[in-house]
Amino acid sequence: MSILNQYLDEKDWHKLQAWFAENDTLEIVNELYRLNPADLAIAFRLLPKDLALEVFESMDPPQQGNLISSLRDVQIRELIEELDPDDRVRLIDELPAKVARELLEGLSPQERKLTSILLGFPDQSAGRVMSPEFVALKQTMTAARALDKVRRTGRDAESIYMLPVTDDSLILLGVISLRDLVLAKSDTIIGDIMTTEVYSIRVDKDREEAARLVQEADLIAIPVVDMEGRLVGIFTFDDAMEILEREHTEDIALGGASRPLEMPYLSASVRHLARTRALWLLVLILAATLSINVLNYFEDSLEAVVTLALFIPLLIDTGGNVGAQSSTLIVRAMAVDEVRFSDLPRVLFREIQVGTLLGAMLAAIAMIPVSLFFDPRVAIVLSLSLLTICLLAAATGSLLPMAAKRAGVDPAVVSAPIITTLVDSLGLIIYFLIANAVLGL
Amino acid sequence: MSILNQYLDEKDWHKLQAWFAENDTLEIVNELYRLNPADLAIAFRLLPKDLALEVFESMDPPQQGNLISSLRDVQIRELIEELDPDDRVRLIDELPAKVARELLEGLSPQERKLTSILLGFPDQSAGRVMSPEFVALKQTMTAARALDKVRRTGRDAESIYMLPVTDDSLILLGVISLRDLVLAKSDTIIGDIMTTEVYSIRVDKDREEAARLVQEADLIAIPVVDMEGRLVGIFTFDDAMEILEREHTEDIALGGASRPLEMPYLSASVRHLARTRALWLLVLILAATLSINVLNYFEDSLEAVVTLALFIPLLIDTGGNVGAQSSTLIVRAMAVDEVRFSDLPRVLFREIQVGTLLGAMLAAIAMIPVSLFFDPRVAIVLSLSLLTICLLAAATGSLLPMAAKRAGVDPAVVSAPIITTLVDSLGLIIYFLIANAVLGL
Repeated sequence: MSILNQYLDEKDWHKLQAWFAENDTLEIVNELYRLNPADLAIAFRLLPKDLALEVFESMDPPQQGNLISSLRDVQIRELIEELDPDDRVRLIDELPAKVARELLEGLSPQERKLTSILLGFPDQSAGRVMSPEFVALKQTMTAARALDKVRRTGRDAESIYMLPVTDDSLILLGVISLRDLVLAKSDTIIGDIMTTEVYSIRVDKDREEAARLVQEADLIAIPVVDMEGRLVGIFTFDDAMEILEREHTEDIALGGASRPLEMPYLSASVRHLARTRALWLLVLILAATLSINVLNYFEDSLEAVVTLALFIPLLIDTGGNVGAQSSTLIVRAMAVDEVRFSDLPRVLFREIQVGTLLGAMLAAIAMIPVSLFFDPRVAIVLSLSLLTICLLAAATGSLLPMAAKRAGVDPAVVSAPIITTLVDSLGLIIYFLIANAVLGL
Repeated sequence: MSILNQYLDEKDWHKLQAWFAENDTLEIVNELYRLNPADLAIAFRLLPKDLALEVFESMDPPQQGNLISSLRDVQIRELIEELDPDDRVRLIDELPAKVARELLEGLSPQERKLTSILLGFPDQSAGRVMSPEFVALKQTMTAARALDKVRRTGRDAESIYMLPVTDDSLILLGVISLRDLVLAKSDTIIGDIMTTEVYSIRVDKDREEAARLVQEADLIAIPVVDMEGRLVGIFTFDDAMEILEREHTEDIALGGASRPLEMPYLSASVRHLARTRALWLLVLILAATLSINVLNYFEDSLEAVVTLALFIPLLIDTGGNVGAQSSTLIVRAMAVDEVRFSDLPRVLFREIQVGTLLGAMLAAIAMIPVSLFFDPRVAIVLSLSLLTICLLAAATGSLLPMAAKRAGVDPAVVSAPIITTLVDSLGLIIYFLIANAVLGL
């Protein structure tokens, strides 16, 4: 039970407000994330106005969306007006179309215009999360004049640490950091000290690509350009961190066979939790019915040697684990661009070798105890099965995510749970074929 | 096959150097990551000197470490001397003690001193990854004087975008951003415009905590202070991004039942790949032998109704999936501090409800087809088992990671694969107990 829950239950508004006054924004956001939506709305309305804005800005878009439905129109309008355009667009993307339209209509003309520019770009694109407010310099300026321009026009820009340099038709020529500008002698010409090898991103590219570029190149911001190379905005490191964090949460959820929650765990209802997980479970249980058919087909072998049934869980777990290892590794390597589709033959060959090594190790270990406690012939069946299953699981686990990516499907979708289930039936078929051959069933 | 592989195979150094000249640093690093260690060393030595430094700086510490063992002493010394102190320490952490000592001895006195400061802090601490080179201001300065100090002393600092303000004994009083300093009127007093509610981190805290603070508060850098609140360094956003990315890769590897690779996939040898996976597989297969004992114990029931064996894979897969969903969700929620140990009763109660809902759904779906194709009594056994297994899997999947964290173990270690294997045996016991009761075996 959180401290805020306690104050809310006791309806002790005085203590609640005292707590708000004593804690910093991050701490407040963290505690609000532990409330259910109804309590969240009550607590938020008790925040002093300035703090409410700060807290709202610090919240993730899905939670902002949850909150908005329970606030009064006037308050909503004030909060939305103060957000940066890119943060506003991210919130709007979370809202039903009708609510989003009303919000847009409530904005001042200036802010509405900036927001509309971003909304014109495709969903998930860099353009939609860039900031259209920036300070651009000319290459003929001196450092002193450039700094003067920054002082005059920098107040509204989201970031002034990366300053793009353009020609008169806004074609991007280079960038200069505020650091270099401040450290430069005042009569230095911008064109002489700007960096011309610029990492920039096209406005229609995926926002994750933009985020990864910022991260790999350790940049504070990168310029966003249109198809003709004209500067249209900047994409900043804090947006990159948020996007990468969200992708991370999504990949982890998919790896654990559910959809992402899109809200803090404790603020989600039990129904919502069940809903994010139900579909995947259904798909997986349908896939698992395949194993019923396989076992049904081999029922005579099972009846003849019931001992064979004892090793079914161990075999399918091991196949699942090897498959999960391969797919996890490859999905991750593709996400950070260490592996591409053209590497498929090389990857497959490596994984088959790894699977064979691991399978041989497990087969050797299983041989003696199973011979002693059960039957040497069963030990041979088990060891041969382990070897073959590990080999095939490693191959499947690397092949499927790469094929998915090629087909335009997020490779994270074909991750551990799906691979595990598919490898199950394959493993059972191999097991019973080997058993029939060795035991002469 | 990568383009660099091709040039190296053909020993076409000319084309290789032309390719280096045409591509930017990031592209070069990405292609180098696709080479095996021997080829990497050859390619690196063909880089022009300036570019070699840039490329080396952009590489991850484990790959820098791999590279170093195959370069000449003089070249190594030059590369290491040019690194920022925090990057140097991260590289040293990857190297054998003897190599690290030699590297330190080869440094200039000034750089060796800075490096030694960082090396004095515990492994994984914020102190070890901070930058000891910063520009600190006094609160009595005017903006003009402060900017002047930045100009005089800022060249060596890793970042000058967040400027700490301290008293004479270096106690941190506030911070001011370079942005606010540049935009301020020249006679403004720093003490009047600095932020006094500062997010800072203590030097002995975990570096992941520092990284998460930077990310949550959208900051370019945070001050690092000692136990008495004295400023000792700054921790920057690019270090935060790198640390979070590495934690992410680690969590994903653990979720996929292996140790992290610590190097790009294609540059790792097959033996290394197998080694990172072997230990986990052994642990999991040992845990899976429990299921052999359970089935052995119930062998009479199996012999009596072989049909029961058909549903074993489906049941243990489903239990594993529900357990994986719960543990993945809770591990993630704990990682981002949405859930703490004190929430255990609340989490457990929620997960039991979710498990019951999901189990009831699956039980209802299984009822009719299993009645039709097999036996109504088997359908009852299966449905009751699905319900109970889902409930227990959800409870186990949430309980174990929280208990692990409490016991000081990384919760990611007790993630999907372990939970799945543990839930297997539990599920089989439940299945056969219900079968024995319903079918009167």
